Amino acid sequence: MMNTALNPITITAYRWVPQLARGLVRDLRVRWALEEAGLPYTVQFCWPPSDQASTEYRQWQPFGQVPAYARDGLELFESGAIVLHIAEQSESLMPTDAAGRARVRTWLFAALNSIEPPVQELAGIDLFHRGEAWTQQRRPQVEEFAKRRLSALSAWLGEREYLVEGRFTAADLLMITVLQILRHTDLVAQYPALKAYCERCEARPAFQKALRDQLADFVEQPPAA
Amino acid sequence: MMNTALNPITITAYRWVPQLARGLVRDLRVRWALEEAGLPYTVQFCWPPSDQASTEYRQWQPFGQVPAYARDGLELFESGAIVLHIAEQSESLMPTDAAGRARVRTWLFAALNSIEPPVQELAGIDLFHRGEAWTQQRRPQVEEFAKRRLSALSAWLGEREYLVEGRFTAADLLMITVLQILRHTDLVAQYPALKAYCERCEARPAFQKALRDQLADFVEQPPAA
Repeated sequence: MMNTALNPITITAYRWVPQLARGLVRDLRVRWALEEAGLPYTVQFCWPPSDQASTEYRQWQPFGQVPAYARDGLELFESGAIVLHIAEQSESLMPTDAAGRARVRTWLFAALNSIEPPVQELAGIDLFHRGEAWTQQRRPQVEEFAKRRLSALSAWLGEREYLVEGRFTAADLLMITVLQILRHTDLVAQYPALKAYCERCEARPAFQKALRDQLADFVEQPPAA
Repeated sequence: MMNTALNPITITAYRWVPQLARGLVRDLRVRWALEEAGLPYTVQFCWPPSDQASTEYRQWQPFGQVPAYARDGLELFESGAIVLHIAEQSESLMPTDAAGRARVRTWLFAALNSIEPPVQELAGIDLFHRGEAWTQQRRPQVEEFAKRRLSALSAWLGEREYLVEGRFTAADLLMITVLQILRHTDLVAQYPALKAYCERCEARPAFQKALRDQLADFVEQPPAA
C-alpha cells in the first residue's frame, strides 16, 4: 500500500449473521468511533465465511474474526485496540492531556475486562447454549457474578453522566456496546443509573448512524457460499 | 497528593491468597512491567479483606480488586491499562513510532480479549468449580474453544520470537501472564512454539524478580482479620 495520508480507512465486517447477533457484532464499536471522529471508511466483507479461515485473512486477523482495520499499510485488529487507535487521533473521543488519557484507557479496559467477561458468558449461555443441561446449574452463578459487576459500575456512575473526565469518551463507547450484549435480559434496567447512562449514549447521532449502517449491510439470508 | 515527579509509584496487592492463586494474581503483570522499565515502586496491601469493599478503596478501584496504581495524584486500575501506561513511558516495553505502538496495543488487547476469556473460563472450572456437576458437560466445550485460540496464536508465532515488532514488548508480557493461567494443564505444552515462547519470556530477569517479590510478599496463613 502507498503511504499517503489520503488513503481511506478499511474495516472488515460480516455480510450475514443471525438476527440475534445483529447490532452486537464488534465492528459496530469501530463504526461508532469513526462516526464520532468524523472519519470516512469503507467496509470489506468477510464472504464467503471460508475467507475468515484463509491464510491471507489470518495474516491480518490471526483469529479469523471481525473487525480488522487497515490504513496506509498499518493493519490492526481487536475492537478495543482499533477504537483506542482512532481515539488517540480525535479529541471527540479522548482528552489531550496525558493523565486524562490514562484515565480513559483505564475505563476502556474496565469495559472489556471487568464487565464484558461475565456479560459475554451470560449471553453465551442464553443465545448459544440454551437448553443444554449444564446451563441450569451454571446460569445463576454467572448472573450473580454479572450483577455484582453491574452493581459496582452503577455505584461508580452514581450522579455521573459519563464514566470519566465529565464527558463522553471512547471508554463510554466501549462500555455501552458491552452493556448492549445484555439486551435480551432486564439486568441493565435493574440499575436506573445504568439504564439512563445507556439511553444517554445511545441517543448520540454517531451511534444511531453506525447502527443503521451496520444493519443495512446485512443481507437477509446467507447467500450460497 | 503533591504533584512532583519524585513521588514514588504505589500499587496494591493481596497479603494472602491460596497457593493455587500464587503467581497468578494480576499485580504480577504490573510488577513485571515496572521491573522491565526500571521503575521503583511500593506495595500497599489490601488487608484485611474488608478493605477491598471499603468506600475509600472503591473510589480508587471500583470493583474492589488488585492491582490499582497511583503516582502523583494519578489513580489508575485494570492491569492492562496500568501496563500500557508504564509501557508508554519506557522504550523497554514499546517502540516509540506511532505504527509500532498501535501494533503493540493490538496484541496487548488480543492477550486480554482473545486469549484470556477461554483460558480464564477453563481455569475457573478447574480451580474454583471442581466437582460441580455442570462442569462435566461444559469443560470439554471450553477446552475446545481454548485450543482453537491457542492454535491460532501458535500459528501466528511460527518462527517469530515475539508477538510483534521483532522484540519483547508489553504485549508479550501480558500474553505470558495469560498463558500462565493454564499452568495446571498441559495445553501450552501441546504447542511447541508456545512453550518455547513462554520459556523465552519467563527467563527474563525482570520476570523472575517480579515473581520472587510477589511470592515473598504473601504470608503463609491468612492472619485473623
